[in-house]
Amino acid sequence: MSKVAVLGAGSWGTALAMVLCDNHHNVRLWTHNPDQKKAMELERKNKKYLPDIELPTSLAIYDDLSQAIEQVEAIVLVVPTKAIREICQKLNHVLDHKVVIIHGSKGIEPDSHYRISQMIKEELSQSLYDDVVALSGPSHAEEVSVKHPTTLTAASENGELAAFTQDLFINQYFRVYTSKDIIGVELGGALKNIIALGAGISDGLGYGDNAKAALITRGLAEISRLATIKGANPLTFIGLSGVGDLIVTCTSAHSRNWRAGNMLGKGIPLHEILSKMGMIVEGIRTTEAVYQLAKKENIEMPITTGIYDVIYEIRSPKEVVDDLMTRNRTNEVDDISSLLLNRYMD
Amino acid sequence: MSKVAVLGAGSWGTALAMVLCDNHHNVRLWTHNPDQKKAMELERKNKKYLPDIELPTSLAIYDDLSQAIEQVEAIVLVVPTKAIREICQKLNHVLDHKVVIIHGSKGIEPDSHYRISQMIKEELSQSLYDDVVALSGPSHAEEVSVKHPTTLTAASENGELAAFTQDLFINQYFRVYTSKDIIGVELGGALKNIIALGAGISDGLGYGDNAKAALITRGLAEISRLATIKGANPLTFIGLSGVGDLIVTCTSAHSRNWRAGNMLGKGIPLHEILSKMGMIVEGIRTTEAVYQLAKKENIEMPITTGIYDVIYEIRSPKEVVDDLMTRNRTNEVDDISSLLLNRYMD
Repeated sequence: MSKVAVLGAGSWGTALAMVLCDNHHNVRLWTHNPDQKKAMELERKNKKYLPDIELPTSLAIYDDLSQAIEQVEAIVLVVPTKAIREICQKLNHVLDHKVVIIHGSKGIEPDSHYRISQMIKEELSQSLYDDVVALSGPSHAEEVSVKHPTTLTAASENGELAAFTQDLFINQYFRVYTSKDIIGVELGGALKNIIALGAGISDGLGYGDNAKAALITRGLAEISRLATIKGANPLTFIGLSGVGDLIVTCTSAHSRNWRAGNMLGKGIPLHEILSKMGMIVEGIRTTEAVYQLAKKENIEMPITTGIYDVIYEIRSPKEVVDDLMTRNRTNEVDDISSLLLNRYMD
Repeated sequence: MSKVAVLGAGSWGTALAMVLCDNHHNVRLWTHNPDQKKAMELERKNKKYLPDIELPTSLAIYDDLSQAIEQVEAIVLVVPTKAIREICQKLNHVLDHKVVIIHGSKGIEPDSHYRISQMIKEELSQSLYDDVVALSGPSHAEEVSVKHPTTLTAASENGELAAFTQDLFINQYFRVYTSKDIIGVELGGALKNIIALGAGISDGLGYGDNAKAALITRGLAEISRLATIKGANPLTFIGLSGVGDLIVTCTSAHSRNWRAGNMLGKGIPLHEILSKMGMIVEGIRTTEAVYQLAKKENIEMPITTGIYDVIYEIRSPKEVVDDLMTRNRTNEVDDISSLLLNRYMD
């Protein structure tokens, strides 16, 4: 049994805390919002994010960060990408011992183009942790909270910490595999949100499953290519945090990125979508970050560019998707081959 | 403009004939069933397979094979796997000139474990054709018939014939890419039906999108492994006829393999499902063929074996899926790596 703090009480943070409770750990769920804390304690529910789920009686809820992390062995960060730096700065002030840092966030920071673990490493005092673990995979929180079978990858350059995370979370319905390719796992989790926006746009236009499958397939090639250039193992993209996460995010109505894309495809402007949803749509920020990155590094990313154009109303959704579908290409394997062969034939 | 015969008036044969009509070819659609021919001529619809679609006025319909293939430049075979040999034998009797043979069927023959093109090559007189082209990809006939954007791969060891097929079919909504990997393209199209049965079983059990995504991801690794052993380029499986076709078949209600799996997951016995659907479910025969093949060649295929066990009521759907989800594995990349590296590191 370990003492663990989960920071961030959105749907995913809450679901992960519930898994840890099922595994009989001593679990503390922290929210920055005192009203949410009070409501969760009173109702024993997270009404905004997982309205139908009863919280385990053993789950302790905090809004005081220093209390939440007292003597914990591990901290699970599950906050939006844009809150990562701030929470690390706060931890520097209140944390007085070494912990295992695990994160379950999916995004890329605009401007720096940093992955989550890079942001953490830049902010968090080195004495407080050995390395970072990313926990990622095809996993809607709503399904985990009702114990539907789910598989994830715990990735870290430090194999011991990945194995520690596996032991912490694994149970009959929550299967955790380990990987050393944290670059690939983090990029897979983040970049797939761009493709999910695209799949939503295609669906919003009323195009069918054939078009969506083509877009997802091309999208997988596009994000694998970028990730490989950034140091990922391309094989990660054939696994759970690549294809797996892509499928679940692009084909499920649970996915908020797909839903945002779907509204874009129907011609609803971005600001209206965001105010309607009332949740963070990581894919929007990620698209922006990756669009900048591709431009800076001169990498061809037609799907990302197209979605950026739709978001910023530079081109219409129909124009973008039709253009993506009719690009002049003939031999499909060449493109994928080059990315894998370049890596393994050197 | 070419003269082309499409043999087989199911939903896919009809949709392909319509694409060819749109491209202003002289198109002859053949059915073995005189009643279907009469009905289609009378109603200008294919009521059983594409009930809502009006057939192009230029489409000629035949039930006489020798008339249908008179002076055609290309023959597109779109009949069930089990009818391939018979139709080739008939063609030997009536065909008196060389043609391009294209097929749009997806299956593996039990016992011989032959792909479609291997069956064609064994049956059809060598003087009648130079090589076979397989046309495959994520493509529900229902969507093609309403001109929704769709992408496919035309694969042949003979690059000229693949390019001929691309020219024949390509238009604004029907995008065709070429590939030399006919082994991979045929196996991708056939084997994905096994995984679609599995995805349907998982859904039928009431498990969620997380479980389905895990099953599809593991399924992709499993079928890529077999296909690579049989001589396919594993990269084909990251493309349209691998991931692409897998996604469309596993996540769409149009898919008859998914629907059959869904009923299996709900505990309905196979004979009842088949009589209910009244259509060929290629995945059932393919599961049987691949199960035999894996056994014979001593290849571990846990998903195929599990689905075989469900079909033949050896184990319950729940037992099989739960078992697949909780298999003892730890590092997920190793498995995939080995299959790609073995090929490229030799």
